[in-house]
Amino acid sequence: MDDQFTKQVMTHKTSAVGELLKLAQTDEVISFAGGLPAEEFFPVEALKQAFERVFRMGNKALQYGLTEGYTPLREQISQRLMHRNIRVSSDEMLLTTGSQQAVDLVAKVYLEPGAVILTENPTYLVALQAFRYYSVQIIPVLSDEKGMDPEDLAAKIEKYHPKLVYVIPTFANPTGWIWDTSRRVNLIEECDRNHVLILEDDPYGEIKFAPNDYYPSMMSLAQQAGSDCVLYTSTFSKTVVPALRIGWICGNRTLIKAMIHAKQGADLHSSSLDQQALFQLLDHYDLNAHILTISAEYQRRMQLMITLLHQQRLGQVNWTEPKGGMFLWLELAEELDTEMVLKHALQEGVAFVPGHEFYVGSPQKNTLRLNFSHTSVEEMPAGVERLGRAIHQSLSSVR
Amino acid sequence: MDDQFTKQVMTHKTSAVGELLKLAQTDEVISFAGGLPAEEFFPVEALKQAFERVFRMGNKALQYGLTEGYTPLREQISQRLMHRNIRVSSDEMLLTTGSQQAVDLVAKVYLEPGAVILTENPTYLVALQAFRYYSVQIIPVLSDEKGMDPEDLAAKIEKYHPKLVYVIPTFANPTGWIWDTSRRVNLIEECDRNHVLILEDDPYGEIKFAPNDYYPSMMSLAQQAGSDCVLYTSTFSKTVVPALRIGWICGNRTLIKAMIHAKQGADLHSSSLDQQALFQLLDHYDLNAHILTISAEYQRRMQLMITLLHQQRLGQVNWTEPKGGMFLWLELAEELDTEMVLKHALQEGVAFVPGHEFYVGSPQKNTLRLNFSHTSVEEMPAGVERLGRAIHQSLSSVR
Repeated sequence: MDDQFTKQVMTHKTSAVGELLKLAQTDEVISFAGGLPAEEFFPVEALKQAFERVFRMGNKALQYGLTEGYTPLREQISQRLMHRNIRVSSDEMLLTTGSQQAVDLVAKVYLEPGAVILTENPTYLVALQAFRYYSVQIIPVLSDEKGMDPEDLAAKIEKYHPKLVYVIPTFANPTGWIWDTSRRVNLIEECDRNHVLILEDDPYGEIKFAPNDYYPSMMSLAQQAGSDCVLYTSTFSKTVVPALRIGWICGNRTLIKAMIHAKQGADLHSSSLDQQALFQLLDHYDLNAHILTISAEYQRRMQLMITLLHQQRLGQVNWTEPKGGMFLWLELAEELDTEMVLKHALQEGVAFVPGHEFYVGSPQKNTLRLNFSHTSVEEMPAGVERLGRAIHQSLSSVR
Repeated sequence: MDDQFTKQVMTHKTSAVGELLKLAQTDEVISFAGGLPAEEFFPVEALKQAFERVFRMGNKALQYGLTEGYTPLREQISQRLMHRNIRVSSDEMLLTTGSQQAVDLVAKVYLEPGAVILTENPTYLVALQAFRYYSVQIIPVLSDEKGMDPEDLAAKIEKYHPKLVYVIPTFANPTGWIWDTSRRVNLIEECDRNHVLILEDDPYGEIKFAPNDYYPSMMSLAQQAGSDCVLYTSTFSKTVVPALRIGWICGNRTLIKAMIHAKQGADLHSSSLDQQALFQLLDHYDLNAHILTISAEYQRRMQLMITLLHQQRLGQVNWTEPKGGMFLWLELAEELDTEMVLKHALQEGVAFVPGHEFYVGSPQKNTLRLNFSHTSVEEMPAGVERLGRAIHQSLSSVR
């Protein structure tokens, strides 16, 4: 191999934890690590019929499509968003390969090297990974289970003049937390006043355990206030299936247009066959009823996980019971480092993600993320028991 | 709209021709503009069955997949490449959203701002569009129907110390030209000696009008010479269907690994459902026979187009008869500007792409690209007749 080539490659630290967790992808390990939806609930039959409908539409359905995505699907998403009090037309929207691509494209068209982004802390690690390719400066804002701390936010906007604030306000990854409405309004006011763009990442917002709970999206609050300081992105990966990789981003028309141009260079367009099939699915299938079903099941799994965790008598451990989403965030005894706990856990046959991965700057090392959506209620007891043993072992080794 | 946001957006010149051609997408206009395969030959039934097979595999097929792509498909592509004397293992390969994404990811991991890329001139315009997002310097090398001029290439490598040379050596877009083997070998020797990476873009290489013609890929020649200075990218968009958007890139393991990391941040992975379906298609369908069929049809269309062009008595006009691919490149009388010809053409009801779009630096304004793969033999005569009228009108307006 010619070292001349490889030494010039832009390399980024490969996560040691990532490598460990890859090795753990065997049937023997019960995994609370991935952010996976429960595949036994996938609407496979409805999706199969949706593809059949597309194939009946004739050969043209398989030709090149528009960079911005299949127009009827954009129109349908625009309709669905009205239930969340978000009003965007189909030309203020771009279909992406998962919401992950939306994050990347915002960075590509809006952030020059050295630009400052504010984020919650901890936050979604692969968003951080996307941002880091653009040589930006990521500054964490003090955050708790109600959102970003208003004082710290104001101070950091003043000090750093950020271009963008990236947030997951509803059932966040990794914490499962929900921002208070007052904190949401505060963020919008601060950003609007200081011309800071907000990227609202909302992959989990529809997975609510109390169907009538209402958490206003940043986008809807901004629109009510007459501001266009919010770009909103979401995905069908958690509510339909991940394999299709269909997400979207909507907001300010000029920004969306710039992203469409950037996407053309990045991949011309995402799978237009999948987009047409998703349109057919939404047209013939009650997705809202499906979302109620999976939300109820995820709530059941979360409650079981919490009951089982109590039974493990872990002593010093804190969590906030999630009201939706897919994750439970644990804070263990202060002296524990969850990277060490993970080594014990993998030996016991259970996996999770240590909190370290989600922090900007110094991590709070006694934290960890558990996914409760993917493990069945049959497997859950064994998984939590193994986790309990790993934590007890870790405790005895540090005391 | 808050001007503070929109004025900070990284904007790139929107092509006036692109806007014109968008308007021309009506049934009344016969289009030689797009790079579209003939949809009446799409293997729709085989593809439908391929999806049915995936749906029968169970729910797990619809879960998240690997960033590098579905392993059995990578293995299958690796097998197929052996017929082209390219030897890569499945872990030296990344599946992408079309080969377009491969171009973008190479730029993302390998090119810092200010880095120099050498290209043919004219060359594929959306590759240029992808590169420009990375603030690189694109330097054209003198090119003719046999490839890059060796002297100019050597001079420009010495002068600019490029990091990358981007080429489409077989049935190029927009020219349809094929590099001589000696020019291929020369490029590899120059690049290997000077530690310059070659990105070989080969979307059309399999669409040969003489099935036994052999044009060695840069990758195979480099491997024979013991060099790993070539990254090779191709796609199934022209040989199966575009809607799936399945391409790949292969080569140096370290570079591929860096691209996998970059792709994780860019979109996690491409549609894994489509990748599994393509695997099933390749496993149950004779794609090579299909490629022979479409190649024969494209040759027939190309020959008809040339016969019809002769009948138009255009006077001063040059082309090289393509031996494969999808494009015919015309050089009209020197005094003609094909952007002006396009305006006449759209009035007549026919579209093409003026050569301007494909040049780095000053364009040769009397050139244009005709696509012959998408227009049926029934529609072809009317299309070429309209084009002939537009050229004659343009000639009389400048003389």
